[in-house]
Amino acid sequence: MATEFYLGADIGGTGVKYIISNGLGDIVHQGEVPTDPNSGKRTLGRLAMEVAEKISPPEGSGEAMFSRLAAVGLACAGIVNPESGHLGRSPNLPGWEESNLKRIIANEFQDIPSVVANDVNAALYGEYSFGAGRGCRNLVMIALGTGVGGGIMLDGQLVVGSHNGAAEIGHMVLDPSGPTCTCGGVGCLESWAGSVAILKQARLMAKVELQDTALAKMVAEKGDDLSTRDLSLLAEQGDAASVAIFAEVGHRLGHAVGNMVNLLDPDRVIIGGGVAQAGELIMGPCRALVPQMVLADEAKNIPVVPAELGTMAAAVGAASLARREQADR
Amino acid sequence: MATEFYLGADIGGTGVKYIISNGLGDIVHQGEVPTDPNSGKRTLGRLAMEVAEKISPPEGSGEAMFSRLAAVGLACAGIVNPESGHLGRSPNLPGWEESNLKRIIANEFQDIPSVVANDVNAALYGEYSFGAGRGCRNLVMIALGTGVGGGIMLDGQLVVGSHNGAAEIGHMVLDPSGPTCTCGGVGCLESWAGSVAILKQARLMAKVELQDTALAKMVAEKGDDLSTRDLSLLAEQGDAASVAIFAEVGHRLGHAVGNMVNLLDPDRVIIGGGVAQAGELIMGPCRALVPQMVLADEAKNIPVVPAELGTMAAAVGAASLARREQADR
Repeated sequence: MATEFYLGADIGGTGVKYIISNGLGDIVHQGEVPTDPNSGKRTLGRLAMEVAEKISPPEGSGEAMFSRLAAVGLACAGIVNPESGHLGRSPNLPGWEESNLKRIIANEFQDIPSVVANDVNAALYGEYSFGAGRGCRNLVMIALGTGVGGGIMLDGQLVVGSHNGAAEIGHMVLDPSGPTCTCGGVGCLESWAGSVAILKQARLMAKVELQDTALAKMVAEKGDDLSTRDLSLLAEQGDAASVAIFAEVGHRLGHAVGNMVNLLDPDRVIIGGGVAQAGELIMGPCRALVPQMVLADEAKNIPVVPAELGTMAAAVGAASLARREQADR
Repeated sequence: MATEFYLGADIGGTGVKYIISNGLGDIVHQGEVPTDPNSGKRTLGRLAMEVAEKISPPEGSGEAMFSRLAAVGLACAGIVNPESGHLGRSPNLPGWEESNLKRIIANEFQDIPSVVANDVNAALYGEYSFGAGRGCRNLVMIALGTGVGGGIMLDGQLVVGSHNGAAEIGHMVLDPSGPTCTCGGVGCLESWAGSVAILKQARLMAKVELQDTALAKMVAEKGDDLSTRDLSLLAEQGDAASVAIFAEVGHRLGHAVGNMVNLLDPDRVIIGGGVAQAGELIMGPCRALVPQMVLADEAKNIPVVPAELGTMAAAVGAASLARREQADR
């Protein structure tokens, strides 16, 4: 029997991160191809060519190009219907909206079976399979990126809801007198904890502070290139204003985590996304608040842990979902 | 084959409501026995005697007393472990805390199989089986009583969490500058929407208002006997202060419902409990807020509906849970 491979791909706004794993889940290759935000067909066609190079059978074997590929898993930001493969709203992929991802995969990968998932759900599945969620059945994941995404797993199953609208943890309203959110609401977790919100807050603080503080200098110097990484470096050097910005993020995150624990009582809460690389600057204040909010004694000490798989989590999870789907057949 | 009966019992602080149903779920008898808050054994012993009278086989048949009883379902306020039968914290039943409900049932009902559940979970299961949740697989229930309880069902399964601490919707913190809650937290849904909070608010408004308003008169007249029913009657007569009190409850409830829909995207949200009998006074403001908060287009018009089974919901649900458990064996 030919070795069976699984492809997991995470469609980002600018690039497609992918992994190829074997039947045991070991990654045998990983790479990235550029995303064409206006064409799913062109993007996945390019991916298929690159994957074929890695795993196609030797010439003259008589086997089809993808005969060694057992299944494809695709992760994508936006509202994804895992059953039908339909992609709804997806701000970073305007040309992909309202298309059917499973159909595009079938066309580009010679009808290989596929599964599709929202990117944070896929990342959660990756952490569950090989990362910070190993050995758990009930998990909550909060991904702090430009915006704030969420994923929920109960009894080993991803929760997608009745209309694929579940796990919008970033838009849990934490305070009706909070800041305006990108979604149009007010006081959502994202309105404090997404990088857009954090950088806005940093610029605001730089303005109201005296002009010669370290924060004000950095904001002026970096301009539009200012990143949460810049801020966390400043905070690590002891800049009080930057520390305060991340402490506020951590406190609001703790509020959201506390609510999630009282609602779902998971084994563990995983914090991922680029902003989470600020580490203890955020996790400290978050962990300080959670036990104060949690009702059930046994759930008070719930582990709130950083994600382990980094930027490849969604690709790894997509491959794992594909592998599970094949196993369930 | 003898007809098989199922007993569903809901242990309240003062009384045990129970139903006996047949294998089709039809209620063949319902009743109530007093609760001894200090003894599970005495309470369930009394219940067993009354049930035996209704369903024991004719004398001389040679059958055992409970031979026609297929299973017992027990609903109980507090932290219930459905697997082990252990009852943890349960403020209304001090003498029952840290006891094993399944063991007491086995002792009093001749080792008949049993299931136990938290009372709001059982009520949700009742609404799912025969009430406002019929035909749905994903449900959220919020029960507005003295406090505020919650229940969550996903894919037909009650969500209890990893430590039986899930579905504490009443203690979702909606506003960190909100009122102090009975749990010690601040700004929980319960700190606005439980009857304790509502009556406190009514008394406060009566104090700060001119002394001759209808609300102030009723508060003075009823004293400690003031109920949310009194307030809703006043509101229905057009009293603006009472209308405003319920509108605030409805608005905060809508905030909680909106968060739940963005988190779990259920088919339907069911509002139960005695306070919910204020009807549109609460449901109107609640339904007005929800679509403004919900992100997924298809979930915006989620039905937010009143419970249908009233005070027997938990007993009905407990019997249904017992019947399902038997079917699954």
